[in-house]
Amino acid sequence: MNMHNISGGITAAKGFQAACCAAGIKYRGRTDMAMIYSAAPCAVAGTFTTNKVKAAPVLWDMNIVYQEKTAQAVVVNAGIANAATGEKGMDICRQTADCAGKALNLAPSHVLLGSTGVIGPQIPIDRISAGIGMLASALSATQEAGTAASKAIMTTDTVNKECAVEFELPAADGNGTVTVRLGGMSKGSGMIHPNMCTMLGYVTSDCAIAQPLLQKALSQVVPDTFNMITVDGDTSTNDTLLVLANGLAGNQPITEENESYHAFCDALFCVCRTLAVKMAGDGEGATKLIEMRVYGADTKENARALAKSVVGSSLVKAMVFGKDANCGRILCALGYAGPDFDPANIEVYLHGEKDTLCFYKDGCVQDFDEDLALNILSEPQARFSCDMRMGDQEATAWGCDLTYDYVRINGDYRS
Amino acid sequence: MNMHNISGGITAAKGFQAACCAAGIKYRGRTDMAMIYSAAPCAVAGTFTTNKVKAAPVLWDMNIVYQEKTAQAVVVNAGIANAATGEKGMDICRQTADCAGKALNLAPSHVLLGSTGVIGPQIPIDRISAGIGMLASALSATQEAGTAASKAIMTTDTVNKECAVEFELPAADGNGTVTVRLGGMSKGSGMIHPNMCTMLGYVTSDCAIAQPLLQKALSQVVPDTFNMITVDGDTSTNDTLLVLANGLAGNQPITEENESYHAFCDALFCVCRTLAVKMAGDGEGATKLIEMRVYGADTKENARALAKSVVGSSLVKAMVFGKDANCGRILCALGYAGPDFDPANIEVYLHGEKDTLCFYKDGCVQDFDEDLALNILSEPQARFSCDMRMGDQEATAWGCDLTYDYVRINGDYRS
Repeated sequence: MNMHNISGGITAAKGFQAACCAAGIKYRGRTDMAMIYSAAPCAVAGTFTTNKVKAAPVLWDMNIVYQEKTAQAVVVNAGIANAATGEKGMDICRQTADCAGKALNLAPSHVLLGSTGVIGPQIPIDRISAGIGMLASALSATQEAGTAASKAIMTTDTVNKECAVEFELPAADGNGTVTVRLGGMSKGSGMIHPNMCTMLGYVTSDCAIAQPLLQKALSQVVPDTFNMITVDGDTSTNDTLLVLANGLAGNQPITEENESYHAFCDALFCVCRTLAVKMAGDGEGATKLIEMRVYGADTKENARALAKSVVGSSLVKAMVFGKDANCGRILCALGYAGPDFDPANIEVYLHGEKDTLCFYKDGCVQDFDEDLALNILSEPQARFSCDMRMGDQEATAWGCDLTYDYVRINGDYRS
Repeated sequence: MNMHNISGGITAAKGFQAACCAAGIKYRGRTDMAMIYSAAPCAVAGTFTTNKVKAAPVLWDMNIVYQEKTAQAVVVNAGIANAATGEKGMDICRQTADCAGKALNLAPSHVLLGSTGVIGPQIPIDRISAGIGMLASALSATQEAGTAASKAIMTTDTVNKECAVEFELPAADGNGTVTVRLGGMSKGSGMIHPNMCTMLGYVTSDCAIAQPLLQKALSQVVPDTFNMITVDGDTSTNDTLLVLANGLAGNQPITEENESYHAFCDALFCVCRTLAVKMAGDGEGATKLIEMRVYGADTKENARALAKSVVGSSLVKAMVFGKDANCGRILCALGYAGPDFDPANIEVYLHGEKDTLCFYKDGCVQDFDEDLALNILSEPQARFSCDMRMGDQEATAWGCDLTYDYVRINGDYRS
């Protein structure tokens, strides 16, 4: 497959425009609303938080993804989550979609919504309406517009997150191939412990693909990308991941699970993993990314559970922050993950850019070079692996260290 | 029932002695070994960590509790966990029990063991042997000896944890009643997320009770006491809770689930809950205890899951540290706990010593007095409750706040 990374994000694919504005929803002196618009109606797929307390825009989007299956625009705000806002919160959604529909000449049911921020307060609808006016008149297909949108949806994120890829698919007219693009943006960075899906993530593509296959591709990709990251174990009320595909690339429409479908899945996997790892590394207060790869597991599910348990352990996270090679904590987190295994049979490693240290094998913590371990733990990423020696299944999970700043940020988030 | 609290701990019950010594296992300038000894053989019950990686002393004790069902002494060390130590770690257990058995004139299979501290290193057996010699000659039935033992098993605990109760049961000779006592000690305070049981906890009693009923009583009491606390979500490799009953109180032996059995269960519940709450409040770095009571739930299991989810949430823990009444986080943690419920139907409260604030009802976060909330969150405990309005089941969970000190302590635990 001839996929490669390109610069850009949600405006990389043909026919997609973006805009942002400072609507003053909660923050001052920064942009806090974003819009994505497609020149043509899109097949839309999505996954949503499994939290029983779902924010109003999550319920709104679920209806569109599961019933309408078509959309043409997305409106997102940062600062207030529109969660735990009752019937009034749903009204805000209806009014927002109505307002954007009028501005873009779309049915409100083709306008997806997203909110992130504090749970509880109502969103001031007048500011949303004013914001939509600004957004609709600022739409642009430039790369800069996509980047600006990815910054407008940030809350405690320290960097914006976007990426894009392109690959070739057979042309619709049968003459050779056309270039298909996928681009995405996402935001974290606290209350991150996706289950089915995570945070706010938006992926756009000009690929022509039937909606059921778009949803299927997303469902296949999420378990090993967004669902393999954690920042603090808290599954948010607002997690939303949407994929919009408008078909403007001119490829032979994907209507079955053929080679083109698998090429699309690979590209979607690449974009989702890149966005997910960026979110994990930019977790609240984080100074470094933690990666845990579990291989030789008996089942894929067990490999995932074991890897996630390690990156989710507060004690592992704190030890990475302290550059302390306290490998017993990795073993402990594997042990309470759930899957059955023989502790005497597994092996645990720490991987540096150049060196690899064996932490544990034959049932015992090994003697290792503490200075070398300190050096490796001083690198920008902390990479661990575990060979379960039970089978051939593997999974990788990503998280971040637990720092003083996480406590500072979350001790007084609302003010 | 005429139960009441008395001062003391593991030496409160008749026939129990304790001792401690500075064996220099890892710490310097403090006691780090403790011994409990009963003048008569004890029925013994226990619960142990569900972590797949079980420390050597856990495996040792499981054999005694499940096979022998009788013991007469316990030897505990702090500093090194004897976990992930392979066959050599089991040898250390055998040698420790042999040595204590000789010193106390007991079969090694009647000597229970416990270790807490760093995972990985081997315990220096020569220091253990020397320690046992000191312990055996220092045994004492005084309250001070029990208190000193509870201090010797501490790791990052800031205070020792002990308690005792007494109550009346029918005398064995049929003449009126006799006083029966239960006393206990425990240590936390990191890697605390019990599942079946937690940490190191020892309860002694002079009650005459058949071993199967002792085990049954413990199994009934643990789910609502030790299993309802969490500090950091990490279920340790070493969690061990043991109850020893030597029958020296002279009560009519409890051989069926009669009134006396229920009185014993109530007393055991009281001791276990007191020790558990003390552990939660003394979690690593903690400045205050968090209590979450869930009532009106449809099932007991759901009430427990909901309450534990809230006290285990990093975001709730950090907000309590910051005295920030960000009640959306409580709602969020209820929502990802697992049990199904209607978010529009539940109510969430904050309880101060004098005032109660309604945080959430009718599907919306409520307007509340922020100054009053700040005042309440400045009290020594943070107490929340949630009415699920679905049934009549309830449960309470305990945890602690997430602080800079938790990060500091765990960023460099080994040194």
